Amino acid sequence: MQPNRIRQLWSENKPAVNGWLSTGSGFVAEIMAEQGYDTLTIDTQHGLMGHAECVSMLIALRNSGVCPLVRVPWLDPAPVMRALDAGALGIICPMINTRAEAEQFVGAMKYPPDGIRSFGPTRAIIAHGPGYYAAANDDVVGFAMIETEEAFANVDEIAATPGLDALYVGPSDLASSLGQGRLPPGVDREEQDMIDAIRRILDAAKKHGLRAGIFCGSPEYAARAVEWGFDMVTVQNDTRLLATAAEKSVTKTRALIAGDD
Amino acid sequence: MQPNRIRQLWSENKPAVNGWLSTGSGFVAEIMAEQGYDTLTIDTQHGLMGHAECVSMLIALRNSGVCPLVRVPWLDPAPVMRALDAGALGIICPMINTRAEAEQFVGAMKYPPDGIRSFGPTRAIIAHGPGYYAAANDDVVGFAMIETEEAFANVDEIAATPGLDALYVGPSDLASSLGQGRLPPGVDREEQDMIDAIRRILDAAKKHGLRAGIFCGSPEYAARAVEWGFDMVTVQNDTRLLATAAEKSVTKTRALIAGDD
Amino acid sequence: MQPNRIRQLWSENKPAVNGWLSTGSGFVAEIMAEQGYDTLTIDTQHGLMGHAECVSMLIALRNSGVCPLVRVPWLDPAPVMRALDAGALGIICPMINTRAEAEQFVGAMKYPPDGIRSFGPTRAIIAHGPGYYAAANDDVVGFAMIETEEAFANVDEIAATPGLDALYVGPSDLASSLGQGRLPPGVDREEQDMIDAIRRILDAAKKHGLRAGIFCGSPEYAARAVEWGFDMVTVQNDTRLLATAAEKSVTKTRALIAGDD
Amino acid sequence: MQPNRIRQLWSENKPAVNGWLSTGSGFVAEIMAEQGYDTLTIDTQHGLMGHAECVSMLIALRNSGVCPLVRVPWLDPAPVMRALDAGALGIICPMINTRAEAEQFVGAMKYPPDGIRSFGPTRAIIAHGPGYYAAANDDVVGFAMIETEEAFANVDEIAATPGLDALYVGPSDLASSLGQGRLPPGVDREEQDMIDAIRRILDAAKKHGLRAGIFCGSPEYAARAVEWGFDMVTVQNDTRLLATAAEKSVTKTRALIAGDD
Amino acid sequence: MQPNRIRQLWSENKPAVNGWLSTGSGFVAEIMAEQGYDTLTIDTQHGLMGHAECVSMLIALRNSGVCPLVRVPWLDPAPVMRALDAGALGIICPMINTRAEAEQFVGAMKYPPDGIRSFGPTRAIIAHGPGYYAAANDDVVGFAMIETEEAFANVDEIAATPGLDALYVGPSDLASSLGQGRLPPGVDREEQDMIDAIRRILDAAKKHGLRAGIFCGSPEYAARAVEWGFDMVTVQNDTRLLATAAEKSVTKTRALIAGDD
Amino acid sequence: MQPNRIRQLWSENKPAVNGWLSTGSGFVAEIMAEQGYDTLTIDTQHGLMGHAECVSMLIALRNSGVCPLVRVPWLDPAPVMRALDAGALGIICPMINTRAEAEQFVGAMKYPPDGIRSFGPTRAIIAHGPGYYAAANDDVVGFAMIETEEAFANVDEIAATPGLDALYVGPSDLASSLGQGRLPPGVDREEQDMIDAIRRILDAAKKHGLRAGIFCGSPEYAARAVEWGFDMVTVQNDTRLLATAAEKSVTKTRALIAGDD
Repeated sequence: MQPNRIRQLWSENKPAVNGWLSTGSGFVAEIMAEQGYDTLTIDTQHGLMGHAECVSMLIALRNSGVCPLVRVPWLDPAPVMRALDAGALGIICPMINTRAEAEQFVGAMKYPPDGIRSFGPTRAIIAHGPGYYAAANDDVVGFAMIETEEAFANVDEIAATPGLDALYVGPSDLASSLGQGRLPPGVDREEQDMIDAIRRILDAAKKHGLRAGIFCGSPEYAARAVEWGFDMVTVQNDTRLLATAAEKSVTKTRALIAGDD
Repeated sequence: MQPNRIRQLWSENKPAVNGWLSTGSGFVAEIMAEQGYDTLTIDTQHGLMGHAECVSMLIALRNSGVCPLVRVPWLDPAPVMRALDAGALGIICPMINTRAEAEQFVGAMKYPPDGIRSFGPTRAIIAHGPGYYAAANDDVVGFAMIETEEAFANVDEIAATPGLDALYVGPSDLASSLGQGRLPPGVDREEQDMIDAIRRILDAAKKHGLRAGIFCGSPEYAARAVEWGFDMVTVQNDTRLLATAAEKSVTKTRALIAGDD
Repeated sequence: MQPNRIRQLWSENKPAVNGWLSTGSGFVAEIMAEQGYDTLTIDTQHGLMGHAECVSMLIALRNSGVCPLVRVPWLDPAPVMRALDAGALGIICPMINTRAEAEQFVGAMKYPPDGIRSFGPTRAIIAHGPGYYAAANDDVVGFAMIETEEAFANVDEIAATPGLDALYVGPSDLASSLGQGRLPPGVDREEQDMIDAIRRILDAAKKHGLRAGIFCGSPEYAARAVEWGFDMVTVQNDTRLLATAAEKSVTKTRALIAGDD
Repeated sequence: MQPNRIRQLWSENKPAVNGWLSTGSGFVAEIMAEQGYDTLTIDTQHGLMGHAECVSMLIALRNSGVCPLVRVPWLDPAPVMRALDAGALGIICPMINTRAEAEQFVGAMKYPPDGIRSFGPTRAIIAHGPGYYAAANDDVVGFAMIETEEAFANVDEIAATPGLDALYVGPSDLASSLGQGRLPPGVDREEQDMIDAIRRILDAAKKHGLRAGIFCGSPEYAARAVEWGFDMVTVQNDTRLLATAAEKSVTKTRALIAGDD
Repeated sequence: MQPNRIRQLWSENKPAVNGWLSTGSGFVAEIMAEQGYDTLTIDTQHGLMGHAECVSMLIALRNSGVCPLVRVPWLDPAPVMRALDAGALGIICPMINTRAEAEQFVGAMKYPPDGIRSFGPTRAIIAHGPGYYAAANDDVVGFAMIETEEAFANVDEIAATPGLDALYVGPSDLASSLGQGRLPPGVDREEQDMIDAIRRILDAAKKHGLRAGIFCGSPEYAARAVEWGFDMVTVQNDTRLLATAAEKSVTKTRALIAGDD
Repeated sequence: MQPNRIRQLWSENKPAVNGWLSTGSGFVAEIMAEQGYDTLTIDTQHGLMGHAECVSMLIALRNSGVCPLVRVPWLDPAPVMRALDAGALGIICPMINTRAEAEQFVGAMKYPPDGIRSFGPTRAIIAHGPGYYAAANDDVVGFAMIETEEAFANVDEIAATPGLDALYVGPSDLASSLGQGRLPPGVDREEQDMIDAIRRILDAAKKHGLRAGIFCGSPEYAARAVEWGFDMVTVQNDTRLLATAAEKSVTKTRALIAGDD
C-alpha cells in the first residue's frame, strides 16, 4: 500500500493543501489532481454527485499521488464505509456534535477490534494493493467537523475520542450556528469572535493530539490558518474557482472590447 | 431569486397542479415541464433514480417556471438537504408519524436559527441566484406526508409543528395502514371512511394554518380534492400517463386493424 | 435463438404494430414493452440517446417478446453493426436514396458471403443465444427509408436490392423533399399527392417481394396504412404520447377545477 | 407474477446457487444471468454502484429466470424499500445484531399489516406483473446477516423474528468480530471455532424454521455448506472471478511464451 | 421561438463573446452559463463527451439566454443533425477544406428546399417552442472552420457558399497546417504570417457577407480580434480556466505558507 | 511523457500481452489493469460502450503502467482522433482493405506534416503530460486490421504505408471473408489455409518493418503466435473470461453438491 500522503506530510510536520470537488465529473477530478494539491475532497454532502459519480472520481484520482478524501452527507455508517470501500483514504464527516457521534464515526471507519467496519474493500484493494486490510485502520484519516454550537460546547470531549484523527472546521455553518442566523454564511471569517472560536477548536485538537483542518476561501486565509497551527487547509472548491475565472475572463474581454481597460 | 410558484399561487388562494416524475430521465422532466403543471415532484422514494439523476432532472426544470419539488425516500436529513442544495424548492417527506419527526423534518429544511440545515447551496445558488440564502428559509416548502395510522392519530400535533408548511396525503399507504391490509392500495379512494380520513387530515392542516396536498389518479378526483379545500393536487405520474396512453394507442390500433372499432 | 417476432408475424401475413422510443431511458423502454407492441424502435437518429443508452434500452427489452429495432442516425456501417452487436433484431436506415446506398446498407447488416458485417455479436449472443451467428443473416430485418425526391425516383431500383427486407416511409421528410419545403412536415398526410406517393412506395416494395412500414401519428392512419397493405405501422413515439397525455390531464384538471367542464 | 425461483427451489428442498455482482454494470449482470445461477445478488454495500446502477442491473436480470436479490448498504428502511420497488425479489441486510433490528428489517420489507412498507412498486409491477401487490409480502425473501459477536449472541432471538425468512452468514466479518481482529478476514474459514460458529447459526435458523445462506469463495466450500444444511450458497463475486481468470490467463500466456510451461 | 442571441447581437453589429465547454458535465455547463457569455460551445470534437452528455449540457443551458453551439467531431451529416435536433442553435464544423464540403455542411443544417436536414427536432421543439420548424433554417448558425492549408487556399470559394453563415478560425490547426509542423500548436498567434493568414480569412468572410469567429486564449487577444473585425470571439475553455485558476491558487497558497510572497 | 509500454517492449524485442475490454465499465477496466497485461484494448467496435464510457475506461487505466489502446468502430477520422484526444496511446482500426484506407488511417493519427490530426489533446495532455504534442506522432501506435479477402490481396501495399506501425489479424472475420461464409467464425484457427493466411500477413508486416498483432482465444494459441513472430498477442476479452469462469464455478458447484465430482 502506498503511504497516505496526508499522514506522510503530517509526520514531517508539514501542512496539507486540500482542494474540493463539487461537480461530480471524473475528468474535472483528474484535472484538479494535476494542479499541485496534496489532497482532494470529493464533497458528497453539498456537491452534485451520487455514489457512482464519487466512484468515478476516486478512479480518476488513481495513482495521482493526491490523497483522496470524501465528505459524507451525514453521520451514517453506510456512506462512510462505502466511500472507504471505493478507495477513499480519509473521510470528513459533517455535524459531529457529541462524543457519542464521534465514537460512532470512528467505529464506522475501522475494522474490529477498533470499530465495526464491514469487510469488503472491493475497489480499495484494487487501488491500494493487497496490504490494504492490514494497514487500513492506521492509514485512513477521519475528520470530525465541528460546525455547530453544540459541537463547540462539546469540542474537548469530541477531541478526546479514541481513534479520531482530526477536527475540521466548517466556518460557514459554525458562524451560522454560533450566531444563530445573525452572521451571514461564508468562509474566511474576520469577526474576532469567530476567529476565537476557530482557534478554540484548533486548541482542542492540539490538546488531544489531533490534527486540524479548515475550509478557506483564499490562499491568504489558508496561510493564516497554517500559521495558527492548522494541519490541513482547503482552498476553495472547483466550481467557485471555475466560476470566478470565467466571470473574470468575460468581464475583462468585454471591458477590453469596449476600450474601458 | 425568482418567486416560488407554489407560494405565489397560494398567496392568491389558487391551488397548484402538480405532476409526478418517476423515470429518472432529465429529458422526460423537460417534456413534462412544458405541459402546463405549476409544479413537478421528482419522486426519489418510489421513482427509479439516484441523486445524480435527481440533479439532472432539477437541471432540466431550470427556468421553466415550474416549481421543482423532491420527494425524499425517508425522513433523514441527508436527502432533504442534498435535494435543496441541488435546487429543489420544496420537499415532500414520506411517513411523518409524530410531532418529533415533523420537527426533525422542518429542522433539516431550514438554516439556523430555524433549523440545522448545513450551508452549501452549490446548485441552488446557481439556479436561484445570489439572494438564495436570505430567502431560502421562507421560500422552500415542506410537506409532511400523513399516510399511517400513527400519523393519523397524531395529525393535530404534527400540523402544529412550527415552520411546517403543508400536509400531504398519500391515499394508498393511508388506506393500507388504516385498513391494516384489508383495503387494497390505490389512489382516488371512494370508501366513505377513507374520504372522511382524508378530509380529517385536510381539516387539521387548515386548523393550524397549513396548506394541504394530495396524490390523485385522475383530473376528476383532483377537482373534488380542490373543492374540499386542497391547495395542491398531484394528478398522476409520468410512467402511468405514458403506459396508459401507449396501451390505449396499441389497443385502438389493433381494434381498427381488426375492423372492430 | 428465439424467432424474430416481426418475421413470425409476416410469415402469418399479419401486420406488426411498432412503437417508437425517443427518450434514451431504459425504464421507459421497459414500460413501453409491456403495452402490447409487437416491436419497438429505438430512434438513435432523432432520439436523445447515445450508444450506451441504446444498449441500456436493448437490455430493457430483453426477453420481452417485443422485437427490438434500431433506427441508425445515417447510412454508415459503424452504427448499423454496433446496434446489431448490441442485440437489435432489425435496423431502420434513414435517407436511402440510391441502389448503391441500399446495397451498402444490406452489406453492413450481413456476415459474408452476403455482406461485410464484422463478427463480434458481444451482446447479441447473450441476448439471443448460441445459434445467433447461424441465424443472423436470415433473421435480422433491414428497412430502407424512402423519404426524399431522389429515393422516390429510384424506388424500384432500391426495392430490387438483393437481401433488403423492407422499405419504410418517413412521411414527414418525404413531404418536405417532394414538396421542396412547400408542404409542412408532419405525419398522417392527407394530400392526395402524398397518399399517391406513399402508395407508390408500397407498390414498389410489393412488386419486389419486400415488406413495407410507415410512421403514423394515430391509430386511425395506421389502420388505413394496413388496409393499403403496409406490413408494419409505427403508431407514435413515447415522447409525443407522454406529452399529449400529460397536457390533456393538466387541461382537464384545470377545466374541472374552474368548473368549465 | 412469476414464482420466485428461490422459494420454488426451497419448496422442493433444493439449495439455491447464488452469484454476486459488484461492478455496477448492467451488461455484466446480464452475462452473469446466463451462466446458470439460480439467483444473483446485487451488492450495494461493498459493490461499486449507486441506486441508478442497481436499477440498471435489475432491468438486465429481467425475465432471465434468475431471482434478483439486493444487499442493502445498512439497515435502513429507505434502501430496502427502494430495492424492492425497483424489482428485487429479496433483500440481504448486513449487520443485524438484535431482535429489534431484525423486526425493523422485516417491517421494511412487508406491506401492512405485516410491516410498514410504503406502496409504490414502480418497476416491480412492470417486472413482475399486476399480481405483484397481492403476492409481495409472501414472495419477497429477507435474509438477516449474522456477522458480529453481538448478532451471534442474539442469534436465537433474531431467528425467532416473525416474518423473517432466512439468516445469511458473512464469514469474513464474523471472523473479524468474533476474533476481535485476531483472525484475518476471508471466506471459506477452516478454523474449527469458526466452523462451529457457522453451524451454530445454521442450527438457529433451522430450529426456528428459517432458511440459511452463506458466502463462499469456492465450489468446494459451497458443497460442504450445502452438506451442512445451508439452503443458499453464494459462490464468489464477479470481480474476483474475472480478476482470477484474467490473472491466470496472463500468467499462463507468459509462461508458455517463456517456454516454462 | 426565442430569438437566437448571436443573430440578435450581429443584427446590432455587436460581437458575441463565446465560452467553450470540454468536460461533458451538465452542471459545469450550467455554471458557465451564469458567467456572462453570449454563447457557449459544447465541443464534441476535442471535448470529453458523447451524445448523451452533449444532450445533458444542452438541457443545462435551457432558457439561460446563452446561445448553445455545438462543435461536431467532423464533417458528417449525422452529428450535425443530431446536435440540432437536441437543441443546438448553431454548429461549428471542423476542417472544411473545399467548397463541396462547405455545401455538404450547409445542406446538413437546413430543411428542404435549402438542404437535406431530416425532420425530427425532438428536443429542439421542446426547448425552442412550436415555431421551431418555420424559423430553423434562418435561425441556426453554421460556422465552417478554416484551419488547413487546403482550406486557406479555397477560402474565397468556401466563403461564397450559399447559406453558410460564418467562418471560424482554429489558429492552432491553421498554424500546424500552414507551417507543416514547423510552428508549434497554440492559440493567440503572434507570428506576422499567422496574423496575416487570420486576417486574410476574416477578409474573405467579410467580402462574401459572412460573419467570422476565432478561438482565443486570452481577453487581450480576443479584443484585438474584435478590433480586426471578428464577430465572435471564443475566450478559453472551461478546463483551461479551471486548471489555471486551481494551479494559481495552490501555488499562491504554498508561497504564502512558505512566507515567499 | 511516460514511455509507451508497447514501444518499449518492442524496442527490447519482447512481445506485448494484450487484454480486451468489452463491457464499458471503468471499474472492470481498472480490475483488468491489475492482472499483468502490458496493454489493454477498449473495444468500441464490438464492445458495449459509447465515447463517454471509453473516456471513463481510459481514466481508469491512468498511471497503471498498462498501455491503453482503443479499437475504433470503423475507419473514420472522428473516432480515431477522439480516442487519441481522450488519452489512447494506440488505435486498432478494423477493416483496412486498401492502401488508400491505410493512408487515411495513418493521416488521422498524426499531426501535420505527417497527417491531418486536429490539435486538441484535452485529456491526453492531462494524462501524458506537457510533452505530449512533441512526442505524439512518434509515440502513438497504429494497427491496421487485415481481416478481409480484399485486405489480404492488398496486404503488401498496406504494409508499405509510411507511418503505419503494425498489422493486426482478426482471425474470425478473416476466416469469414476468405472462406466466404463456409468457415465458421472463431479465433484460434487450426485450418492449414488459415494458418498460412495468418502467417502470410505476419510476413508482409515483417517485410515492411512493421509489427504484427493477433487476437487469440487461449494462452496456448498466443504462445504459438509469438513463436511465429507476432509482436502483440491479445488473449481473450473480459466478458468471455468472466462468462467462462462463472459458468465453470456454477457447474462445479452443482456437480459437487450432487456428489458427481
